[in-house]
This record gives sequence, structure tokens and C-alpha cells, in this order.
Amino acid sequence: MAEQKIPYKIYLAEDEIPKQWYNVRADMKTKPAPLLNPATLEPMTFDDLRPVFCDELVKQELDDDTAYIDIPQEIQDFYKMYRPAPLVRAYCLEKKLQTPAKIYYKFEGNNTSGSHKLNSAIAQAYYAKKQGLKGVTTETGAGQWGTALSMACSYFDLDCKVYMVKVSYEQKPFRREVMRTYGASVTPSPSETTNVGRQILERYPGTTGSLGCAISEAVEVATTNDGYRYVLGSVLNQVLLHQSVIGLETKAAMDKYNITPDIIIGCAGGGSNLGGLISPFMGEKLRGEKDYDIIAVEPASCPSFTRGKYAYDFCDTGMVCPLAKMYTLGSGFIPSANHAGGLRFHGMSSTLSQLYHDGYMRAVSVEQTSVFEAAEQFARVEGILPAPESSHAIRVAIDEALKCKETGEEKTILFGLTGTGYFDLVAYQKFNDGEMSDYIPTDEELQKSFDSLPKVDK
Amino acid sequence: MAEQKIPYKIYLAEDEIPKQWYNVRADMKTKPAPLLNPATLEPMTFDDLRPVFCDELVKQELDDDTAYIDIPQEIQDFYKMYRPAPLVRAYCLEKKLQTPAKIYYKFEGNNTSGSHKLNSAIAQAYYAKKQGLKGVTTETGAGQWGTALSMACSYFDLDCKVYMVKVSYEQKPFRREVMRTYGASVTPSPSETTNVGRQILERYPGTTGSLGCAISEAVEVATTNDGYRYVLGSVLNQVLLHQSVIGLETKAAMDKYNITPDIIIGCAGGGSNLGGLISPFMGEKLRGEKDYDIIAVEPASCPSFTRGKYAYDFCDTGMVCPLAKMYTLGSGFIPSANHAGGLRFHGMSSTLSQLYHDGYMRAVSVEQTSVFEAAEQFARVEGILPAPESSHAIRVAIDEALKCKETGEEKTILFGLTGTGYFDLVAYQKFNDGEMSDYIPTDEELQKSFDSLPKVDK
Repeated sequence: MAEQKIPYKIYLAEDEIPKQWYNVRADMKTKPAPLLNPATLEPMTFDDLRPVFCDELVKQELDDDTAYIDIPQEIQDFYKMYRPAPLVRAYCLEKKLQTPAKIYYKFEGNNTSGSHKLNSAIAQAYYAKKQGLKGVTTETGAGQWGTALSMACSYFDLDCKVYMVKVSYEQKPFRREVMRTYGASVTPSPSETTNVGRQILERYPGTTGSLGCAISEAVEVATTNDGYRYVLGSVLNQVLLHQSVIGLETKAAMDKYNITPDIIIGCAGGGSNLGGLISPFMGEKLRGEKDYDIIAVEPASCPSFTRGKYAYDFCDTGMVCPLAKMYTLGSGFIPSANHAGGLRFHGMSSTLSQLYHDGYMRAVSVEQTSVFEAAEQFARVEGILPAPESSHAIRVAIDEALKCKETGEEKTILFGLTGTGYFDLVAYQKFNDGEMSDYIPTDEELQKSFDSLPKVDK
Repeated sequence: MAEQKIPYKIYLAEDEIPKQWYNVRADMKTKPAPLLNPATLEPMTFDDLRPVFCDELVKQELDDDTAYIDIPQEIQDFYKMYRPAPLVRAYCLEKKLQTPAKIYYKFEGNNTSGSHKLNSAIAQAYYAKKQGLKGVTTETGAGQWGTALSMACSYFDLDCKVYMVKVSYEQKPFRREVMRTYGASVTPSPSETTNVGRQILERYPGTTGSLGCAISEAVEVATTNDGYRYVLGSVLNQVLLHQSVIGLETKAAMDKYNITPDIIIGCAGGGSNLGGLISPFMGEKLRGEKDYDIIAVEPASCPSFTRGKYAYDFCDTGMVCPLAKMYTLGSGFIPSANHAGGLRFHGMSSTLSQLYHDGYMRAVSVEQTSVFEAAEQFARVEGILPAPESSHAIRVAIDEALKCKETGEEKTILFGLTGTGYFDLVAYQKFNDGEMSDYIPTDEELQKSFDSLPKVDK
């Protein structure tokens, strides 16, 4: 077959947007460990989870067997507003690096929420609407998830209550305004509006909040108000399922041009982007059809995979959520004030944790300053200002491309460019002014945090 | 021919990106009036303009006859990084409005500069590089042009000095940081770095600056430093030429699906977006091949077309630039503090002014609050947060679609969605808080401003 010229951007046609999500759990020999009821330490059942999540989403959460799940037509229609997302050949970056490697990235930032989060937000809002609910509650850190959810809720005329980590609420007033423009109410967390918020404020006066704490508040509001459910933008199996649209589109675009990646790279906070991007490739790897070098990239300041424990832990600070088995730094871990808000979660998707534990992928941690160096280098030649989170993947993609330059290997590198950095310019300013710091937790700090892990013999 | 299903987004293929720009002046029976030397009142010659602009751009500026001009390969390659831009069928907006009208928009915001400005920035940077220059100077108001130019200059390793209207510099620190990330130096204007800046500061202490004043500073720096030239993001003929890529792509996409617009709408500040979008359609109209209802939309607070005089005027406050014949409010006109910084210029493209004067297009002015109402309505259903400038076009597109709802006409409406509003959230916040005001200049204020027009008998 004659070699085709690869365009700068590969766009699938509208009718090539996936019509089914892919559930990687179906192909896992060792399934991810189940969520546990924190009171009984028994696996959470459908009925246990119904007060928290929409029924259909509970089904998806617990379904380890169905490989392909139909995407409802209403969600497909919404996807058409901003998908297919382009798969970009980074010709300009390759040239700048003078590498023989071929670099591709899947760009998910071409929508107003600025990231891939919309893929799951619209699905979760749809199922809430279909169940006849009034609204949903959630937490947001950096604000990408909250923005995505507010967009999705405004599309389906659902009420949307967002608990935003207080430090982000104050540092990112513009994020708040986007959410308000889409009709959401935004409350800084911890707040006086919930029991758990009041308790946390009493215990830690002046705290600037954390994702774990905002989750606790959002869950409380959902479970104590009629017609509301809680929705989450990462970590959960259902979220990875929805995000598989990223990987499926990427694979379809690559197949079209007979491209096979050698290395697949994604940043990992809770795992939504990485899990989505790699899913169909991981499926092939799990089925023994193909092999890929799959790399999770995390900040050195919040190194769940590379320095965490694989253990049952709470997903939230208030300890109201089920226990999840995952790589975790302990639910009490407070990462240093790095600028990748989306990568500051103490835990990690159970599915990805199991895959990592079983050796199907590896993990790398990178320091903040080197991440912004990569971000700037990328922005200047590829013309996109990347989000700090996404820039973790860029860092490692560049590192791998530079290794190829040394060895002469023509590897094909694929990475996920999850979003844009328009709302992260305080971070860029710090970098531009040479005032960015790198902080890596000490072994003692981590050990202290591990001591708070719940005792679960599973 | 069977009717084709129109997708949500029509993307041309990479090899369908235009390879030539279209110069609408070639089809104008009455050519736009020439720039005049302010000292002699004689038309500016190639040699007069060479100290200010790159040679190739001077040629383009003065060329009223060549209809198609080749786009250099290097610029075509850069275009591939973010073009073709999608032509979007606004199915969701149509449904929300319950209109029989078919609404399309050409979305130019899918790049980090956030607007169409990059189309001309990359061309101007390319010609500067080709001429062996060290760098370029420019002014920016809202910051879209400055951002675009800094991206273009970083791509070609050119120095980029941006004079940013002081009020924007202070209100939009993030815009400044994007430019710095792309390596540009950004100076608030008026500044102490130029003679004209010092004079203006002496005469108007505490002034927050204006576009006209920032232009004067940038021109002075370009003409007094070896190896520098001045570049401008709107108004000029060369800019409209480069921006024709918008209209050419739009027309190609529409032709592909046998779509013919009845109404074409664009916001108009200096005319770069409107001129670019309408150019091939205007060409057909000028040649008598087709008719279109072409509408320029401007803010009621800065109504050059609808309330300005058609006369020779300065483009800048410092009166160092050539005189241009255009619809103008007078170079001393200071628009009220509305939030569409890109539409606050006192004048208008000479080419568009001539076309308007000759009856080939009409103009409408709209008030700020109604513009943001339209912006919010659009954002909620179409999923894109529009720039305030672009939202002027949205306002009139919605108004025209609502007229169709009344009359039952199935008109096809096309408008230009020039950019995104990520850096305009102070404005959205004011709107969300109900604190937005509308100000329309009085006849007396305009008359006072007209009194300052230079006396030119042409």
C-alpha cells in the first residue's frame, strides 16, 4: 500500500464519531476491586449507590462485563457540536526537536469547557435528565469539570450546583464566571451550606479547601435534596467509559492512515483522560493482540502511582464516599500548591490502578518547572497554549522524542492534549517571571499520610 | 441533485485551504480612496510607505488590480496548524429560536490567539522575516491582535514589541501573559518609551490610553529602529486581503453543500473580519453575478458606519500616520468603556467604507446589554463562549432569524464568529451581575469630535 501523506490534522467525518463507548473492564482478566461500603466493608450494590448516582450510571459503574455500550442519540448529537476532535501530527514540534520520532496528539481542548471533561459531563447530565431529576451537584478544582458540567446542564435545562475548592474559587474568578454564564451556582468549599463543610471549617479554620472536601459537600447536598444526584468528573469507572470516546476516535483516525503508536502518553490525576485515551489500545494489549508502551504522567508533587500505596482508601476528606482500591497518597494528603489543579487528587481510578498493578502500563513523575518549559516550547511551535495538566504529557512526549533523537529510532509517539491553559495564566506568569517552585513531598510526609489509610483487609 | 444532509460542522480537507487570497478591490468599479501623505496631501507612494511597512506588504496595500495573490507556502503550512476553520450549522440555536431560518457561522476562534487575527499576523510576520528584518512593532487593544502577532513572531523567530492600550494592559493581565509566553515584550500605552507617548502623557496626565495613541507609539518605534517595521491588525487593505481566507473557505464549504446565504453578517471594528468574510461574496455582487444582503454590525457606542462621516481622517491620535478616507467619528473620539475592545476604533477600512458608501452593504448598530444577552443565549446552546466583538454579529443573526420566525421565511443566514471570550470574563461578570450599562454618544458629542477632522478637499 502506498504511503499516504499524513495531514497536520486528521478529522474524522461526523458519522465516524463512535456510536458506542468501550468498557475496558470487559477485557481485564483481573477486574478492578469493587467499591466498598465504608460502614460494612462489603461491596457497594446497585441499591447502595442509587441515592448518590443516577440509576443508569450506577449500572455502568458496576458493569465489568459489557465491552460496548451504546451512546444514546441525544449524547451523540451533542458530541457533534465539538467532536470529532482532531488528531494532530506535531510536524512543527518534531522539526524544532530535530527528532526522527513521529509525534501525534489528540486535542480535546476545542470546546468552551477547554478540556475533555465535556465527554462525560454531557453523558451524566443526559442520564440525570432522563431519570427526571431536577439537578446535579459536583465539585471542581481547576474548574474544567465544573465548566463542562455547567455547559452540559444548561443544554438539558438541569440545575447545576458546583462546589469549587476555595483557593481556586478565589484565584480563578473567571472560571466561576463561565460557570455562571452557563447558569450554574458556584459555592466556595468548604462552605457553611453543608454539615460536612461546617465541620471541616470548625476543625481547620481558614482552610482553602481541597477536592476531597468539596466532594464531601457535593455528595451531602445531592443525597439530602429531593431530585438531585451527585456527579464526578474522574476516577469512576463510568467516567472512564464515557472518555473512551477519546481513544476510539484516536484509534479510528490512526487506523485510517495505518499509523500504529509505539508509545502512548497521558497525564493522570484521577485517570479520566488517560483511561479514555488508552482504552482501545489497552484492550488490544489485554487481549494479547498488540503491545504498546503506555505511560501515565503525574506531578512529582502528587505522585499517586509512583510513590503511593495500592490500598483501599476514601475518595473524599469527609469520608462520606465509598472506599475505592487504588494507588493513593492517603485521603488526608495535601499536595503542595502546584498549578495543575486537575492532577492534585490523592487517589487514582481503580481500573487504571489495577492495570498499573498488573504491569500493563508504567508511570513517570515530572516536576512543575520542567512541565512549563515543555508547555512553552510546545505553545511556540504548535500554536496551542496547553493546560498545565496536559503539559505533563507534553513533557514526557518531548523527553521520549529526544531519546529517539539520540538513538535514531523512528518511534511513533501519541499523547493526549487534554485542554487549553486560558484560565491558567497566573501559573504561566509565575513561570515567565522565574518564580515557579518545585516541591516534592518527603518520605516522612508520605508515611504520615499513609498512616491515615483505613484498615481494610482486602 | 439529491439534498445532502448538512453536518453540524463542515470541515474542508487540508488541501482545500485556499492557496490564493482574493483582493476584492480588483472587482470594485470605484476603488477605495488612496492613503494621503498628511504633510503634502498627495497619495502615499511605495517609497513613502517603505519605512513603515515591509516592502511586500506595501505592494499589497497599493495593489487595487490583482484579483488573486498567491499565499506563500510557509504561510500555507502555518495555516494548516489551525485551518481549515469549521463552518458550523447552528442546529441547536435554530431549535432554541424555533426559527425556519438556517443559521451558519464560520468559527475562527479555534486557535490560541482566540480569533481570526492570526490569518493576517502570520502573513505579516512572514514577509518581515523574508525581508530579513529583526522584528515588528504593533498596538493591541483587546489583545487578540497582539496575541496573534506574538504567536506568529515566535514561529518565525522575530522580535515582537506590542504597545497595549493601558486600560487593557491593567484589566487584562492574562492577555499580557499569553503574549509574554510567546516571547513578545508588552508595554502599556501611552508610555515614556516614545516621544509621542511622552507628549500624550504630558497633555493628558493619567490617561488610560486609546488604540489611536498606541498606534502612534508603535509606528514611532518601528520607524526609528533599524530592522523594524510596523504591522497593523485591521483597517488596511493588506489585512482585508489576508483575511479573505475566511470568506474563501466559507464559500468553498457552502458550495460543497449547495448552500447559498441570503444574509451575511459580521461585526465591524476596523473591518478585518467583516472584509475577510464577505470578500468572495462581495466579489460576486460587484460583478453582478449574485446578490446578498450584507450587514456590518457595530456597537451603538462607537457607530462609525451608522453615524460617522465619510471623510479623510487620521488613523491614530498622534497624527503620525497617513490619512485614510473612511467612515470616521474623528480621531479624537473616545468611545465609552464598552467591553468589545476590538470594536472601539474611531474609523473603518477604506475598502469597506467605499463599498458601504456605494450601497453594496448596510450597517446596524446594537447596544451592549442586548449583545451579551445574545452571547449568553448562543453559549448555552451552541457550546462556545463567544467574544464580545463576535457577539455583535450573533445579536443581529438572532434578530434576523426571529424575523424569519414571524414571516415564515426560510432564509439562510451566515455570520462570522470571529473569536472566543475567554479573556472577556470581566465583561461577562458585569453582565451576570446585572451591572452592564449602555451608552450612546449624543449628537453634540459626535459633532464636537467631527470638528477635529482634518480639512482635506478630496
